[in-house]
Amino acid sequence: MATVNKIENIAIIGLGLLGASLGMALRGRAYHRLGWTRRSEVREWALENNVIDETCEDIKDLLAKADLTILCLPIPKIMEYIETYADCWKPGAIVSDIGSVKEVIVNCGEKFLTPQGVNFVGGHPMAGTENNGPDAAFEKLYLNAEVFVTKTANTSTQALEQVKEFWESIGTKVVDLEMREHDNLVAHTSHISHITALALTETVLDCAPETLALRYSGCASGFRDASRISSSSPSMWREIIENNQPAVLEVVRELGKRYAMLSEIIENKDYDKLESEFSKGKKLRDAWIEYKNN
Amino acid sequence: MATVNKIENIAIIGLGLLGASLGMALRGRAYHRLGWTRRSEVREWALENNVIDETCEDIKDLLAKADLTILCLPIPKIMEYIETYADCWKPGAIVSDIGSVKEVIVNCGEKFLTPQGVNFVGGHPMAGTENNGPDAAFEKLYLNAEVFVTKTANTSTQALEQVKEFWESIGTKVVDLEMREHDNLVAHTSHISHITALALTETVLDCAPETLALRYSGCASGFRDASRISSSSPSMWREIIENNQPAVLEVVRELGKRYAMLSEIIENKDYDKLESEFSKGKKLRDAWIEYKNN
Repeated sequence: MATVNKIENIAIIGLGLLGASLGMALRGRAYHRLGWTRRSEVREWALENNVIDETCEDIKDLLAKADLTILCLPIPKIMEYIETYADCWKPGAIVSDIGSVKEVIVNCGEKFLTPQGVNFVGGHPMAGTENNGPDAAFEKLYLNAEVFVTKTANTSTQALEQVKEFWESIGTKVVDLEMREHDNLVAHTSHISHITALALTETVLDCAPETLALRYSGCASGFRDASRISSSSPSMWREIIENNQPAVLEVVRELGKRYAMLSEIIENKDYDKLESEFSKGKKLRDAWIEYKNN
Repeated sequence: MATVNKIENIAIIGLGLLGASLGMALRGRAYHRLGWTRRSEVREWALENNVIDETCEDIKDLLAKADLTILCLPIPKIMEYIETYADCWKPGAIVSDIGSVKEVIVNCGEKFLTPQGVNFVGGHPMAGTENNGPDAAFEKLYLNAEVFVTKTANTSTQALEQVKEFWESIGTKVVDLEMREHDNLVAHTSHISHITALALTETVLDCAPETLALRYSGCASGFRDASRISSSSPSMWREIIENNQPAVLEVVRELGKRYAMLSEIIENKDYDKLESEFSKGKKLRDAWIEYKNN
């Protein structure tokens, strides 16, 4: 098993919403923040705005210095960078990520980095908005967010602990779990809601032009919030579902059954049953809100 | 056709979220605000907090003075009060409401009030939150909200104009339309989202106790917003759907078809098509947000 270096230099690769917000959250802390992203003007913006402490033109020079690297990239890019730059990290370094799915990424990380003596620990902060890019970044994005880190039979306990400590240092709650358990979990708690929001948005707004003006008038805060994540990046959500298809499909089917049951209740005019389902939903959600507020 | 009185005294019947917020929105305006609700302590609270200007124990005394009455009650209560107090209003008075469905209410209003020489004009402000009661009320609830007012073959043009002017005076945008058109519209823009939010909440949180703790951790802002309206009043939503069943059922079926199509795309791993659906959803919603912000 690879050794683990003491963490002084942190490399943030990718300075979009998640990467730039991470740099902001790390302001004034003990780490030295290295940052890199493809566009040089964003690297300069990040330096000028105290999002990172240091950058350089060639990502390889930066990865060579990093004790901990957080890959804040789209899922396919995370895997591409791991493969492409596998020999750039120093032995004992830790590489982690923020990808919304874990099995495909962790398998890739272990395949390419373990032979180099580099530790890979999958990570996934439950943080984000419907907006993208550095302009959307803000210091408190991660505050009180839950962060999942995955452990496998190959994970170094020491590396796992260091990644957990790192995330805890910026005010998140860290939970470690097995990668398939993670992918099944987020299919429920996150991915499925993008499918229902899409079905809702299309049902409400995909209509004849002469109907649309009235529909615009009829949509208020309920629709605004229920559909918010429909404004997320289409390519990002395609990639997430593409890389978690079996788990997502299972939840899609479960929700389909529950929706069909509710449809039947409405068709049968069984309003007592409908009210008891609404009550059940309210109880379930209110209890979660209570948990979140504590 | 009934005459229409000049509006000086406005009666707000029901001082929950919608009624109390209406009183607050009317602060400092030309109208004299009469207010009544069943519980005397809420009437006192409303007087003390400048939500209304005047109240009295017997609702009948108050209705007798009102030039315009806004029934801010649950749907069954709106219809019950219209029938019960039909002979309390003075001829030429206008009665309106805030109910989320219009056909059943407007039919009731015209049946019981037209013979008394009292004008009924259905109204529905697209405003609300997932919370209820006077404690949840706030002055800006209606600001920039759309308000639907319904006209029928029996509606006095003058009464319709007065109700429209009244709502416009507190910063809302008023649209008049036919009552069935209204009920079909809100089935799309509002009612259906309560069904999808419920199906989502149950799919995510209706699970074995040993799974629930992890689900709690995995839910973040996406789920919070997509499920928010699941925390609404179960009895209120039962009543709304019960009184708009044919229109709701039609939209439930439409969304069911769209959801099935998305499920099939995921099952078939047709990710290009999935991405183009996500793009379509984003375009549709972003255009509505653009409209709302202007």
